[in-house]
Amino acid sequence: MIGARVPCLLALLMFFFARPATGGAGESSFKYQQVARQLLAAGMKDGESFSLLRELTSTVGSRLSGSPGAAKAVELVRRMLMKRGFDNVHLEPVMVPHWVRGPVESAVALPSRKGKPISLAICALGGSIATPNAGITAEVVEVKSFDDLHRMGERARGKIVFFNRPMDPTKLNTFEAYSGAVDQRSAGAVEAALAGGVAALVRSMTLALDNVPHTGVMGYRDSVARVPAAAVSTMGAETLARLLREDRHLKVHITLSCRTLPDVQSANVMGEIRGSASPEEIIVVGGHLDSWDKGVGAHDDGSGCVQAIEVLNLIRKLNLRPKRTIRAVLFMNEENGNRGGRGYVTAPGRSAEKQYAAIESDRGGFDPRGFSVQADSTVFTRTLAWQDCFDLLEAGKIARGFSGVDIFPTVEKGVPGFGLDVDSQRYFDYHHSNNDTLDKVNPRELEMGAIVEALLCYLISEEGL
Amino acid sequence: MIGARVPCLLALLMFFFARPATGGAGESSFKYQQVARQLLAAGMKDGESFSLLRELTSTVGSRLSGSPGAAKAVELVRRMLMKRGFDNVHLEPVMVPHWVRGPVESAVALPSRKGKPISLAICALGGSIATPNAGITAEVVEVKSFDDLHRMGERARGKIVFFNRPMDPTKLNTFEAYSGAVDQRSAGAVEAALAGGVAALVRSMTLALDNVPHTGVMGYRDSVARVPAAAVSTMGAETLARLLREDRHLKVHITLSCRTLPDVQSANVMGEIRGSASPEEIIVVGGHLDSWDKGVGAHDDGSGCVQAIEVLNLIRKLNLRPKRTIRAVLFMNEENGNRGGRGYVTAPGRSAEKQYAAIESDRGGFDPRGFSVQADSTVFTRTLAWQDCFDLLEAGKIARGFSGVDIFPTVEKGVPGFGLDVDSQRYFDYHHSNNDTLDKVNPRELEMGAIVEALLCYLISEEGL
Repeated sequence: MIGARVPCLLALLMFFFARPATGGAGESSFKYQQVARQLLAAGMKDGESFSLLRELTSTVGSRLSGSPGAAKAVELVRRMLMKRGFDNVHLEPVMVPHWVRGPVESAVALPSRKGKPISLAICALGGSIATPNAGITAEVVEVKSFDDLHRMGERARGKIVFFNRPMDPTKLNTFEAYSGAVDQRSAGAVEAALAGGVAALVRSMTLALDNVPHTGVMGYRDSVARVPAAAVSTMGAETLARLLREDRHLKVHITLSCRTLPDVQSANVMGEIRGSASPEEIIVVGGHLDSWDKGVGAHDDGSGCVQAIEVLNLIRKLNLRPKRTIRAVLFMNEENGNRGGRGYVTAPGRSAEKQYAAIESDRGGFDPRGFSVQADSTVFTRTLAWQDCFDLLEAGKIARGFSGVDIFPTVEKGVPGFGLDVDSQRYFDYHHSNNDTLDKVNPRELEMGAIVEALLCYLISEEGL
Repeated sequence: MIGARVPCLLALLMFFFARPATGGAGESSFKYQQVARQLLAAGMKDGESFSLLRELTSTVGSRLSGSPGAAKAVELVRRMLMKRGFDNVHLEPVMVPHWVRGPVESAVALPSRKGKPISLAICALGGSIATPNAGITAEVVEVKSFDDLHRMGERARGKIVFFNRPMDPTKLNTFEAYSGAVDQRSAGAVEAALAGGVAALVRSMTLALDNVPHTGVMGYRDSVARVPAAAVSTMGAETLARLLREDRHLKVHITLSCRTLPDVQSANVMGEIRGSASPEEIIVVGGHLDSWDKGVGAHDDGSGCVQAIEVLNLIRKLNLRPKRTIRAVLFMNEENGNRGGRGYVTAPGRSAEKQYAAIESDRGGFDPRGFSVQADSTVFTRTLAWQDCFDLLEAGKIARGFSGVDIFPTVEKGVPGFGLDVDSQRYFDYHHSNNDTLDKVNPRELEMGAIVEALLCYLISEEGL
């Protein structure tokens, strides 16, 4: 786009970008529209979201539950909250799983006739057992679904089961595409073992075609044999599928050295702005502090964590003095256990409080579109009345939907849940992989998420649900 | 965000991401909603936008008017359109300016007392004259506005005028922030010369703080002396401002070797799908094929160009057979002259056609939010009736506003204009700089723009305005 060299064009630009006034707003709405504008100005001018995220990702890096990184992160954000003088800053201990990747993970395709071994980019799935030290070498069956596998009968016995159903690119919301494919990752090892397979190799959960494998949690079932499970990059999956079309007896050699160690004590971290009228009523705003061990968890979910802290920053900068308590909670262990989310509900002292609402940001630090509401229709209708305020932030999409994994144990108890809804197109390009780094986060988009969350917290605090 | 390991969570995710049905849609609307869904599926599954953009940016690169790159681009997109068998593929010649950057552009801050020279990252503004070969060395006055400069009186005489007003970060729409700062770039040289200054140094038009200068067009006035003009990176601007606070007699040495050569013949490139009922009624969908010589113009405006081609691809793939002609126009010379936009209106044969509507994408290949309408209220109201279809694409923001520079000469003649509205947060991080490269474009976001434009073209074609 041109620089407005011609003065008339410049004038046109300025004229046309002027925002239309929102009509018919009452007095109370006008007040909150003012707050929306003030939050926008404060956040966009001096917001700290990105500098906090830089600090978290550069001084700590990845933060898998039980890892030294996770322990450092707990201490770092505690200090961030203390330094800013928020109320009631403390840790709430939770025991978390401690899975480690180990030094070796590799896969090589071995043609049955001629041709050189071809390396495939893989990584162990979180929770997987290791292969024997020498690795596993076996033929491969490719399937697109568990039904495919069931129909195969005995043909999968002794083989590596290759789950190669892509995320559906025709879904506009990439979380829908993810939901439609992630069973392969979560339950692939169990299904492979039930079919007599010796390992599961799963196409990475991403819509991008690149050579970066994406990890994520997988599970075993007590009654079913445990077999190792790994993700292969989407380019690796395409390569393997092509090789298999040409060579049905191709083998793959996989080596993984991951293992699960005893549980470790870790913690949820929290701090708050105490309510001025009803301090016992708590509005939780949170994200999860743990990440996978690939990349540095900049989007997943460093973004949600720094946004929760920034909500407190913004509300204090504007001297809003909310009626209810607004509490930032950095949950531990969302990725592979949700011990933090469950631990929050049962922590000592929780029963003396009233959890009034819970908000989570865990869909990446992208430009917000609005929020999902996981509550009854009375609450939903109430939030719809605030749409004009969110429209001012271009985040007026309010729809019923899932709120977040960390707050789900809270929401299950009847507390209204809210999930920050963001532009989803890029998320799975980065998610759970070495691509999830700070440079993928735009500072303004990240800050906008905090601004929208701050407005939602304040509206809930002042107007009630 | 977690993988839905726990089956109940998976079910929840799937349940909650199900889209609510759009209520109350009439029959005709239902038909177009179906088209919207089909366009989405076709584009997201097999869309060509990104591969076309890769081809344009990798085989051609930058495409400044009059450059060999621009000539190659004209030929490449002509072939792209021919190869796909679209109707009436041809070039329409236009004469364009031919400004070249030359081999040298540098700036060094020279402390008046002690200290080493400090290099500043600069680039010539498009249209600037060169400095003398030996460069210009002068003291610097920093201003935030033309008013500042006017108040300075004689103090600017013989100095380099440093325009350092940042884009306003508190504007949510970054184009507003751009409009509020770009006078410094477009008219800074004239204002500097009027104040007796010897050169203009302008803070880059970006909200990012980095060391990459952003070029863009500037102008001279016939009655005013011509002085060289360059952009300095935002980090360079911050450094220079700091140095000036410490050392009022600091000098800067600037060397530029740019110059303007005689005009060159170039062309607009076009191809179309001929209308089945009213072929003489033309719906233009376009972008501009020229770019600045920094980066490869991936967002500005390679995106708009490939989207225009993709609109034709999608409409043909769906075998929609539009009533009116849909014409992709790749305009030449938007950046520094708009000769293509103006030439389109006056080209031979144009008077035999009826230009029915014009659509432009020139705000980067980001996720679409909707579109702006530059037309009378009857047309605007008509397009509002289509909102349910665009809501399905999460691009339902329809607002009156500027459409686009290339189509402005057409719109000025009373033709309804439409501008693809996209998420604006990242655009100026890349705009007119070495940052504007293919890796900054997300394939899905880019394709979504084409899908939204295709739907708009089709609705206009079938329903009329």
